[in-house]
Amino acid sequence: MENKLPHFSDIENAYVRICNLINKTPVLKSSTINSFFKNDFYFKCENFQKVGAFKFRGASNAVSLLSQEHLKNGVATHSSGNHAAALALAASSKGAKSYIVMPNNSPQIKKNAVKDYGAEIIFCEPTLKAREETLNEIVNKTGATFIHPYNNFNIICGQGTCAMEFLKEIPDLDYLFVPLGGGGLLSGSLISAKAINPKIKVIGCEPAGANDAYLSLKSGKFVASEKPKTIADGLLTSLGTITYEIIMNNIDDIFTASEGNIILAMRTIWERMKIIVEPSSAVPLACIIENFKNVEHKKIGIIISGGNVDLSKLPF
Amino acid sequence: MENKLPHFSDIENAYVRICNLINKTPVLKSSTINSFFKNDFYFKCENFQKVGAFKFRGASNAVSLLSQEHLKNGVATHSSGNHAAALALAASSKGAKSYIVMPNNSPQIKKNAVKDYGAEIIFCEPTLKAREETLNEIVNKTGATFIHPYNNFNIICGQGTCAMEFLKEIPDLDYLFVPLGGGGLLSGSLISAKAINPKIKVIGCEPAGANDAYLSLKSGKFVASEKPKTIADGLLTSLGTITYEIIMNNIDDIFTASEGNIILAMRTIWERMKIIVEPSSAVPLACIIENFKNVEHKKIGIIISGGNVDLSKLPF
Repeated sequence: MENKLPHFSDIENAYVRICNLINKTPVLKSSTINSFFKNDFYFKCENFQKVGAFKFRGASNAVSLLSQEHLKNGVATHSSGNHAAALALAASSKGAKSYIVMPNNSPQIKKNAVKDYGAEIIFCEPTLKAREETLNEIVNKTGATFIHPYNNFNIICGQGTCAMEFLKEIPDLDYLFVPLGGGGLLSGSLISAKAINPKIKVIGCEPAGANDAYLSLKSGKFVASEKPKTIADGLLTSLGTITYEIIMNNIDDIFTASEGNIILAMRTIWERMKIIVEPSSAVPLACIIENFKNVEHKKIGIIISGGNVDLSKLPF
Repeated sequence: MENKLPHFSDIENAYVRICNLINKTPVLKSSTINSFFKNDFYFKCENFQKVGAFKFRGASNAVSLLSQEHLKNGVATHSSGNHAAALALAASSKGAKSYIVMPNNSPQIKKNAVKDYGAEIIFCEPTLKAREETLNEIVNKTGATFIHPYNNFNIICGQGTCAMEFLKEIPDLDYLFVPLGGGGLLSGSLISAKAINPKIKVIGCEPAGANDAYLSLKSGKFVASEKPKTIADGLLTSLGTITYEIIMNNIDDIFTASEGNIILAMRTIWERMKIIVEPSSAVPLACIIENFKNVEHKKIGIIISGGNVDLSKLPF
């Protein structure tokens, strides 16, 4: 089956649809981080997005496109947290129900957020198989529309509005570093960034402990995420069919980072920039620390994907 | 001895002097915090100021006014940390030495910051008496110019530029809540805020465990801070002669907050706004939680004084 792939015009249309629903997030700089790592960094801060993560962009776009008839039965998804909160808020703001299948080991702060936005949570084991089975049961029982967290045309278009905003503000970036889990954010970022600045190099950033996309790229064929182990709880999942195709055809490279460097990068951002970022958001800077030792004086964009952290369980 | 007191024009002149040295910090909002506490809050984020605290405004102004001859021998001060880092950076950017007397119980992150900015640190016991004695020794030995952390005309003028920027951006605030330790920030804020918006009510915010200014206001005479005990390590000190006079003649009220509410407010700001604020910066919101239960629908400005926290020693 061939996937229908988004073009930049689809992302522009998504932006028109959601621009009054989302926060236009700031791009921050830090002279200390610039001098530490010898490049000129720009951080697009989706930790300041509604629900504390970029996921609200995609969810808003997907929900905005549903008919009244479909909204009546609600929406459903499986997610480790941020997509869940995003879909719950996008649905409740339209008066619709949402059913969220969550792994039982999700951070407490993410469980609370999803509940606060009015969703019904159904817990499952933390495997992709358990998520999908539980989700199917719910959809069959309720008639809710399944909104996949990343392998969905409209979700990818929504996520692409982040890089679009970013590149419209800073068009001459040499590099764009993007966290890579299921690939929704990276897919949308690739389409937007390459359309606005064809010379930009876009790098996907994975934890070494969840390096399935890295292995896929290097081997030239799909490798699934099996027993991933990383503090970056937003980056555990495998690529989907759509995100695999977009990423493999457009990506410049995929880097990985150790757990130690992820924690170091996270702490550096907290201490020096005074902003709260979740571990997944620290993976791009960690990848730069680990893989980019001889690159200097470049303009590097980093997408800070979210800021939802359980403050009782910090790694430092 | 009569104090020479700053006028708003002195603060305007300070702003011309330092505006190219400081960060123009953002004013942030949070719809969640607004709905929690039923007012319309504006947060002036000096945690994003250079050295992570408003103190850089005053230090820059004071150092900018020194002659080359005075700069040659350097500057000296005693401080629990943020003024120290600020003075060290202001001095080193002019190629001058700085000597900093610090209580030996200062947070490690503040000690490191002061060292990183090139200062020479001299440790002392954590009492005002020990600080002053040690400082006198250093000044006598080196000929350095003592820059008091708050009881200093030029420092107060520099700190006043924060409320000036804030009120120029949001002129119609009903209230301005300001953390209150030695009173430098509050004094400058009072002068700026009342000059720009004579109707504004300005509230000083103290930890209940360091409520010397509150006791001074209620008794009508100076009460010193003795054995203060609070997590808000920036608010331990007594008022000075200048700050006492400005505050007692201009303040609308002083509120206090319990340690529990300070920690609750700090955690709320971290979790909901995704920004890192130090405990002292959470005291205004804590005071609102504790004292402002029946006030609704007002425009309330809060100065977030700084974001320097030892991440290894969080209260949650």
